[in-house]
Amino acid sequence: MFLKNCWYVAAWDHELLDGKMLARTLLEEPVLLYKSETGKVVALQDRCCHRGVPLHLGRREGDCVRCMYHGLKFDPTGKCIQIPGQEVIPAKLGVRSFPVIERDHLVWIWMGDPAKADPDQIIDFPYLRDPQWKGIPDYMHYDANWLLIVDNLSDFAHLAFVHTKTLGGSEEYAYVTKPVAIERLPRGFRVERWHMNAAPPPFHNKVLPAAEKDKPIDRRNIGHMHIPGIFFLESMFSPAGSGSEKGNREGTREYRNCQFMTPETRRTTHFFWTYLNNYEGDDHNISRSLHQSLIDGFMEDKHLIEAQQKMIDLDPNFKLQAIASDAALSHFRMVFSKLEAAERAEEATAQAAAPREPVRPHQAGFTA
Amino acid sequence: MFLKNCWYVAAWDHELLDGKMLARTLLEEPVLLYKSETGKVVALQDRCCHRGVPLHLGRREGDCVRCMYHGLKFDPTGKCIQIPGQEVIPAKLGVRSFPVIERDHLVWIWMGDPAKADPDQIIDFPYLRDPQWKGIPDYMHYDANWLLIVDNLSDFAHLAFVHTKTLGGSEEYAYVTKPVAIERLPRGFRVERWHMNAAPPPFHNKVLPAAEKDKPIDRRNIGHMHIPGIFFLESMFSPAGSGSEKGNREGTREYRNCQFMTPETRRTTHFFWTYLNNYEGDDHNISRSLHQSLIDGFMEDKHLIEAQQKMIDLDPNFKLQAIASDAALSHFRMVFSKLEAAERAEEATAQAAAPREPVRPHQAGFTA
Amino acid sequence: MFLKNCWYVAAWDHELLDGKMLARTLLEEPVLLYKSETGKVVALQDRCCHRGVPLHLGRREGDCVRCMYHGLKFDPTGKCIQIPGQEVIPAKLGVRSFPVIERDHLVWIWMGDPAKADPDQIIDFPYLRDPQWKGIPDYMHYDANWLLIVDNLSDFAHLAFVHTKTLGGSEEYAYVTKPVAIERLPRGFRVERWHMNAAPPPFHNKVLPAAEKDKPIDRRNIGHMHIPGIFFLESMFSPAGSGSEKGNREGTREYRNCQFMTPETRRTTHFFWTYLNNYEGDDHNISRSLHQSLIDGFMEDKHLIEAQQKMIDLDPNFKLQAIASDAALSHFRMVFSKLEAAERAEEATAQAAAPREPVRPHQAGFTA
Repeated sequence: MFLKNCWYVAAWDHELLDGKMLARTLLEEPVLLYKSETGKVVALQDRCCHRGVPLHLGRREGDCVRCMYHGLKFDPTGKCIQIPGQEVIPAKLGVRSFPVIERDHLVWIWMGDPAKADPDQIIDFPYLRDPQWKGIPDYMHYDANWLLIVDNLSDFAHLAFVHTKTLGGSEEYAYVTKPVAIERLPRGFRVERWHMNAAPPPFHNKVLPAAEKDKPIDRRNIGHMHIPGIFFLESMFSPAGSGSEKGNREGTREYRNCQFMTPETRRTTHFFWTYLNNYEGDDHNISRSLHQSLIDGFMEDKHLIEAQQKMIDLDPNFKLQAIASDAALSHFRMVFSKLEAAERAEEATAQAAAPREPVRPHQAGFTA
Repeated sequence: MFLKNCWYVAAWDHELLDGKMLARTLLEEPVLLYKSETGKVVALQDRCCHRGVPLHLGRREGDCVRCMYHGLKFDPTGKCIQIPGQEVIPAKLGVRSFPVIERDHLVWIWMGDPAKADPDQIIDFPYLRDPQWKGIPDYMHYDANWLLIVDNLSDFAHLAFVHTKTLGGSEEYAYVTKPVAIERLPRGFRVERWHMNAAPPPFHNKVLPAAEKDKPIDRRNIGHMHIPGIFFLESMFSPAGSGSEKGNREGTREYRNCQFMTPETRRTTHFFWTYLNNYEGDDHNISRSLHQSLIDGFMEDKHLIEAQQKMIDLDPNFKLQAIASDAALSHFRMVFSKLEAAERAEEATAQAAAPREPVRPHQAGFTA
Repeated sequence: MFLKNCWYVAAWDHELLDGKMLARTLLEEPVLLYKSETGKVVALQDRCCHRGVPLHLGRREGDCVRCMYHGLKFDPTGKCIQIPGQEVIPAKLGVRSFPVIERDHLVWIWMGDPAKADPDQIIDFPYLRDPQWKGIPDYMHYDANWLLIVDNLSDFAHLAFVHTKTLGGSEEYAYVTKPVAIERLPRGFRVERWHMNAAPPPFHNKVLPAAEKDKPIDRRNIGHMHIPGIFFLESMFSPAGSGSEKGNREGTREYRNCQFMTPETRRTTHFFWTYLNNYEGDDHNISRSLHQSLIDGFMEDKHLIEAQQKMIDLDPNFKLQAIASDAALSHFRMVFSKLEAAERAEEATAQAAAPREPVRPHQAGFTA
């Protein structure tokens, strides 16, 4: 159901300020996140190995965390380093820790086999660290499977009907524009869509200076989707006919939309996002207005996508019917399914080879 | 679990006034109901065939409905007739439509094989269209399986204990009256029960003119229950000893109780009803008082029946023990079970013969 | 999952005053409790055998109870003794009744085979009836499996971290004290733990006269746990160094903590308790203060134990890891598992030998 051997966004770095112990469920596993005193982010299974009390109800002690039920103390690797009243600590006693990388204000986590956690696999998006590009990082929670959000972003045609008065601008968009190009990538896709000589969409028109308002623009969007659910959208809005598509960027205003979908459970999703612009300079009201417009637009998506999830809950056998504009979506789902099936097969092989542990007395009685 | 090849009440016609798009789950299927411009009621599966968004979140366009996610448009037969940005529409693309008949202010729907939907199978109850008979049509929602409501209506003995102060009148009713006749019908039953020389029940006494109040009456009830859960009750309340049972209707006041149970899910029910009288003339307060008395009585039933449902949820293996007065109930359940088993067998045969569809790329990944 | 052939606490006797019909689910079975006119407690299955309506919605008539759906009347043994409108009552018609014993203000119930219900198996704790020992009996509801509460009480080490400022007193307790003795009993355990020359714990210090406040004490706790979840704790708090452990009780203040865990369902628990002291005389404020302190402490446990339950719900395969202080817990779980497995085996044998009942017409149709 989930792909484990890949990097997911677990948090924005500002969520961990001031030693905060952040409890967050990722891929149906409870995880505790905090910054150690050295400044490195620690990610531990949020469940004491002794009796299962969540560690986020415990106490941070320097780089370590202590469970406040019987006082077991764990170091940043998850190893148990103290049991009050007991001198010898079994070498293997501890909780699972997860590889974590902090980069460009994002905290990335690897939920699969730690031996495979290669930091170079983290998708680089330099705009996130370029001071010219400004935006307000934010978070939204979805009552829907993350793939439904990926689907949503795979095709801009929905802008026409879902976001007519916010991010889209007109229903016409769906009839007169088509993807200029769809590139099928080994772990995602790249899709490009132009809308030439069109009215500026409402969210953009709002932040334009008076002289540019309501002037027709050439609107070019280039979207990149990557496994497991990482989406970057480059938007170039230029004066109509100025030849932006041939390289003339004069008068062009640009946006970078960054969205990170991380499954909380099979039917809920963490949605991290920021919407960057490169022209506000010191006028932070531009970011603020764009941020609010994006929230308005996302709420329109959320309304439909959560309703879609409920329909699928009602009838899990429902088979979606593809239309022509689902080419990118179909490719992504196929890529995801293959990777996920391969991972499950590997897991099954490993489990078959592992020795079975007997039930010991202290484990007896509870789940019978 | 459900009988599909039969007519159910889906709505009162006044629920569809002014172009309202009514979303209602019937037999665990989400259905969208609306009146087309020609005045005919349309019933479509309330789930876009493309990605499953509910159509009731869409927009009516004349006789058609448009999904507001990617703009697919469906005609009243459910056929997809437009995909914005795509010229060729696959011939089979569309959503299911259901046969619907509007008759005597009721909207009847056929949830099974459309080829078998014979309008002549709709039970006729002429009082529903006779202007002399007046009442206020209403709706109630039950957190209980519809058969528990059918059970309730199968035996008037419960009037004595559940409705002592509303629809019944005395506990004595349970001890001194018995069914005069029980007729087992191929798709239901007819049961008749008399209570001669009794006080008028509270709901009836309330609306009597001063001269008739508290005078003993001969009370005769004739109930008809039909598959799947359609109940008509004819009540004749005559001056005690006036010989109403031999045909003398002088001084008799009559009621027609119409109740329609339609499963929403296996544990919730739509309950449509109206309580008709033939004597109010222009005094609408009589309908209004009877309407309120019936709601009071139904709330007494609902309280017990929903508690009964919770007990069955706790222990699905609970076996109900029949008593003598369950003869009608037992017959109805047996009839229902046979019809339902026959339908399931037919369905299984059809499914075994149908070719298996392969999973296509755009369907992959979600439910794995 | 549950051990049935043993005595459970179903209620405090004050809960049944004034003819109250108490509906309480025990071991996932709905039970109706009431005091008959002769003063004996009656416990019946809280579900009419006819159509499953809860009997607690009915009416007590002397020692009997009448279902208010169709009027069936049941005597204190559960036998149906009246069906309004029906002369012959089937001999076997009725609801299950449960053996009940009222003793020392507790109502004990036997949920298993009545033939095995031996009152001598009820654990005797004479302090519950000794007028010198005073306390305020109370009840708390847990959203957790009862074994997690048993676990909690199996080891006083948790006092140090969970109850530092209420029942414990210091984290030091976990480091410097150990069980003096652990006795493994055939149906439970006895554990003893001393903390010599320590500050009086906050709940105790609060009720001490000024002259004794903050004076060091020798603190001795002896706990007894019995199947299925019955816990008595004897506490002796003596002036430090006074030789209480050698029999000198001068200046010793004592407590008796009585706790009774009864499963409501597999994940919720009824928790009955009282905290007795032998020295308050006529100063009831001592009981009141101790009662409040204990509630404060129990809320600390409840917070952790319910979080623990949620973690186990998330991953039912989670295997608890034992530490040295889990010796008593491990023994209890093993004893419980053996008893429970033996009971299930016996039940399976009985079921295999029992004849299968056919589905009769009135039972048809509902659960299909």
